[in-house]
Amino acid sequence: MSTEPPDWPSLIAAKRADLASKIPEAWCLSPELLAKLETDSRCSVLDIPRTCGILSEKEVRITEIEDATALVGKMASGAWSAYEVTLAFCKRAAIAHQLTNCLTEIFFEHALTRAKALDASFALTHTPTGPLHGLPLSLKDSFNLPSIPSTLGLVSFLTHAPPKTPSSLLPVLESAGALFYVKTNIPQTMMTADSHSTVFGRTVNPHNRTLTAGGSTGGEAALLALRGSIMGVGTDIAGSVRIPAHCCGLFGFKPTAARVPWKGGTPPGRHGSPSPILPTIGPETHSVRDAGLFLSVACADPWAADEGALNAPWRQVADIQRPLRLGVLTEDPRRPLHPSVYRAIKTAEQRLQSAGHVLVPLDGLVPDVYDAAVLAWKFFLLDPAKTAVRYVREGGEEWVPSIATAMFPELKGWEASLEELFEMGVQRRQVLAAWHDVVVSKGLDAVIMPTYQATAVPHDTYGLPIYTVLANLLDYPAAVVPFLRADGEKDGPFVRDVKYEPPYKPEAVDGAPCGIQIVGRPMRDEELLKAMGVVSQVLECKTLG
Amino acid sequence: MSTEPPDWPSLIAAKRADLASKIPEAWCLSPELLAKLETDSRCSVLDIPRTCGILSEKEVRITEIEDATALVGKMASGAWSAYEVTLAFCKRAAIAHQLTNCLTEIFFEHALTRAKALDASFALTHTPTGPLHGLPLSLKDSFNLPSIPSTLGLVSFLTHAPPKTPSSLLPVLESAGALFYVKTNIPQTMMTADSHSTVFGRTVNPHNRTLTAGGSTGGEAALLALRGSIMGVGTDIAGSVRIPAHCCGLFGFKPTAARVPWKGGTPPGRHGSPSPILPTIGPETHSVRDAGLFLSVACADPWAADEGALNAPWRQVADIQRPLRLGVLTEDPRRPLHPSVYRAIKTAEQRLQSAGHVLVPLDGLVPDVYDAAVLAWKFFLLDPAKTAVRYVREGGEEWVPSIATAMFPELKGWEASLEELFEMGVQRRQVLAAWHDVVVSKGLDAVIMPTYQATAVPHDTYGLPIYTVLANLLDYPAAVVPFLRADGEKDGPFVRDVKYEPPYKPEAVDGAPCGIQIVGRPMRDEELLKAMGVVSQVLECKTLG
Repeated sequence: MSTEPPDWPSLIAAKRADLASKIPEAWCLSPELLAKLETDSRCSVLDIPRTCGILSEKEVRITEIEDATALVGKMASGAWSAYEVTLAFCKRAAIAHQLTNCLTEIFFEHALTRAKALDASFALTHTPTGPLHGLPLSLKDSFNLPSIPSTLGLVSFLTHAPPKTPSSLLPVLESAGALFYVKTNIPQTMMTADSHSTVFGRTVNPHNRTLTAGGSTGGEAALLALRGSIMGVGTDIAGSVRIPAHCCGLFGFKPTAARVPWKGGTPPGRHGSPSPILPTIGPETHSVRDAGLFLSVACADPWAADEGALNAPWRQVADIQRPLRLGVLTEDPRRPLHPSVYRAIKTAEQRLQSAGHVLVPLDGLVPDVYDAAVLAWKFFLLDPAKTAVRYVREGGEEWVPSIATAMFPELKGWEASLEELFEMGVQRRQVLAAWHDVVVSKGLDAVIMPTYQATAVPHDTYGLPIYTVLANLLDYPAAVVPFLRADGEKDGPFVRDVKYEPPYKPEAVDGAPCGIQIVGRPMRDEELLKAMGVVSQVLECKTLG
Repeated sequence: MSTEPPDWPSLIAAKRADLASKIPEAWCLSPELLAKLETDSRCSVLDIPRTCGILSEKEVRITEIEDATALVGKMASGAWSAYEVTLAFCKRAAIAHQLTNCLTEIFFEHALTRAKALDASFALTHTPTGPLHGLPLSLKDSFNLPSIPSTLGLVSFLTHAPPKTPSSLLPVLESAGALFYVKTNIPQTMMTADSHSTVFGRTVNPHNRTLTAGGSTGGEAALLALRGSIMGVGTDIAGSVRIPAHCCGLFGFKPTAARVPWKGGTPPGRHGSPSPILPTIGPETHSVRDAGLFLSVACADPWAADEGALNAPWRQVADIQRPLRLGVLTEDPRRPLHPSVYRAIKTAEQRLQSAGHVLVPLDGLVPDVYDAAVLAWKFFLLDPAKTAVRYVREGGEEWVPSIATAMFPELKGWEASLEELFEMGVQRRQVLAAWHDVVVSKGLDAVIMPTYQATAVPHDTYGLPIYTVLANLLDYPAAVVPFLRADGEKDGPFVRDVKYEPPYKPEAVDGAPCGIQIVGRPMRDEELLKAMGVVSQVLECKTLG
């Protein structure tokens, strides 16, 4: 009994049409505006939501409020209703999508209904539902919500029934008062830094649409930079929260694995992996305190929501009043820092030192970053059934272009074996031990290092995320903060005679957000957040939306 | 260039002679006494240390003090010196060894030198070195101490150079004031419940020398029951702390994996295993509070000592003032409880209920215990190089008889593969999820269950430890407490028409210690310890030494 293969092109077209139909006509940008943008794709589209005339003045004020903490404050005090806030973000998300192609699922009605219920409850009790009362949260496409597809942009997933139960984290966030209104775009397989799928196409960077928005939580970052969301929920196994935050000028936080309930999403690969590198959920935000707000709710009682989570509830820790001891890892010679990032690291180092913090150079003291990334990648390639590849092939898809750039040449033809897995376990422990001994012996609170060797780069040139995957291999929490911007003139003195990979093209990235990464001790997410706060204050980090 | 294989029989003989030579002649039992014991090997030898005339009255008093907490109190108050305490335990350990063959390494001089130094420091400062001031701790043979061999009783290890650095836990214990004086016997491969190796022979149960002392931390349990040690340090990946404690009438505590610094011992198998079941260090003790004393020191800052440990320092938690909610798992039909254990579980249930605690029957609600054990065993068999087997073969050893009984018939010929490892990961998560849902939905503080289907049984008949390995598969902390004894008369009414495995022979086990197991929530070792205290108080649990 053979069955006809599904008519994939029709299914893709139908999915795209369905998504487009979820945006009311009144929220659509004018064809003239869109046409004009096409003529200069390099310009920033960040101003358009506020100038396009679709949002009311109050809706601009709502969506451009400082951060989620302030936004919840407005609702918790009764100043703004959850409904008007949600409506404002729905509108602005619709606009952001038209500018960057950042959304995969739209369920505005669902969100507005929930907002009304929260308002009704508030009217009755004069008490917010919880610490996230009324907060619209955007979700990476791989989170499961009942009745809403989790296609991951995979053609073969278009015929899947939508999930019946939510990802285990989502009821936790909902109980705290949050609501969900959109899901956002990711890369094919979730293993490249270009959020580009066959079903949904490519998400672009609102700072410069010729640049990647990052990945895999890239739809989120584009949406947040345009303030179509005030807080986004992503996942990170190699940098997928931090890379897009870096590319789009946001804060991002990858917690220690298993501190946030993970169970229940739709993975792009196979369940049951013996890899010690676990994917973890983390937020992209507009402030450090928002990351804290998210984590204090998400990690409140993780094991209760997920048998695979650490039974390690979020701790309240005191502010750090003493000088920080910060390791500084500048670069791996095989991925020299582009001038913008080199300037950011050097400037950060200088300013932190001037502010009285102790900077400890780590170059040469810790294991090779590139080699550690190759080892991490092996753990990602363990599945003998190559389930992720099968998912792509089953839908008759082509590979998106960036896939070819996201593989180590060292691993061409490499096949995992149980024998090698033992060796990999030994090698990983060596990397862990070397890092541990440096962190402990130097008494480091955290390590400052690049998030990536460059800012956001032109589409399909990002390559391998060696500077982010390190924290996943180590299972250290890691945060990124926005700091400075690419600037041909200021970056000039930081150009060196090295082989930049990808090539350094100052004119292509001019104005792109830059940033740095801060890596903490394992299970010391709370302390990392405090250190992130201190560093951000010294460096005056602000999201570049 | 070929090398002659070592002359193994001579090396074994030399090792045994060397061990025997470490016991001063004055501490040797009379040949008459030893000969008399041979004629009735079934009788208990527990009284001999106190009656043999080798120990002074004070030495008897020292070694028979209630527990380690009380002992440290005596030294911390200056009532007893560390030297006299250490000397007493050295003597008594020497006697215990002659009665049960429980030791593998003896380094009395080292311990006495350290005790003198502690006394000198105390004389100067009037302050104890730490919470374990002067405490002699016995160690399972697999712990590494500089210059002291870790042979694991393997012939092929006899030619290994002794370790240069200690197991990461040991300096932590030493900083707290502990000292080490002996290492203790384990089974060949550490994967059977009979502590019987080619190099050192078999450790027997001091309650009845025809019974197993349990394994793999069996030398410890025999030593503790004879009060040749007041606290022993073991490891547990399938029950290796709990089984011997159960067999010898002691308290035992297997913490959540990686809460105690693990790094640096000598494993019986290969490093780098991708198994999610990690071995963990735990104490065998004479009281519940001693387990707490050990854990509060050992887990004080685990990550600082071992990059593989959880960064989860021991927490101080309040006593439990409310009734406990205790799940009760009676038995797996494939391993019916022998009458003694059945009586212990039923009696415990009754008494706990009478004391006001809430008992929740779990039989039929949780996954099959036997199947879960088979799954756990697969994780133990992942190494394609079969390193443990190679270690045995390299020394030209025979298998000790119990090895044949410690393998699931289901796994005969089974070979691990990377493909199956993914499936095993999925299956393990299913077991975890089912248990989690029961524990959470029933609001259980802990689960009462058997440690083993029987008491200590005749040598080489223990078989598979399905009731203990469950907590390792789940990574739940688990404790055992001594409770009741095998008693042909009292057990009579609990005999059922089932197939006992191993066969039930009331006369063979009469008087053997019995006990129960208490399993807690993951990473809630502190709360389990409190529950263990409540249960022990209700049941009036006492070590049977």
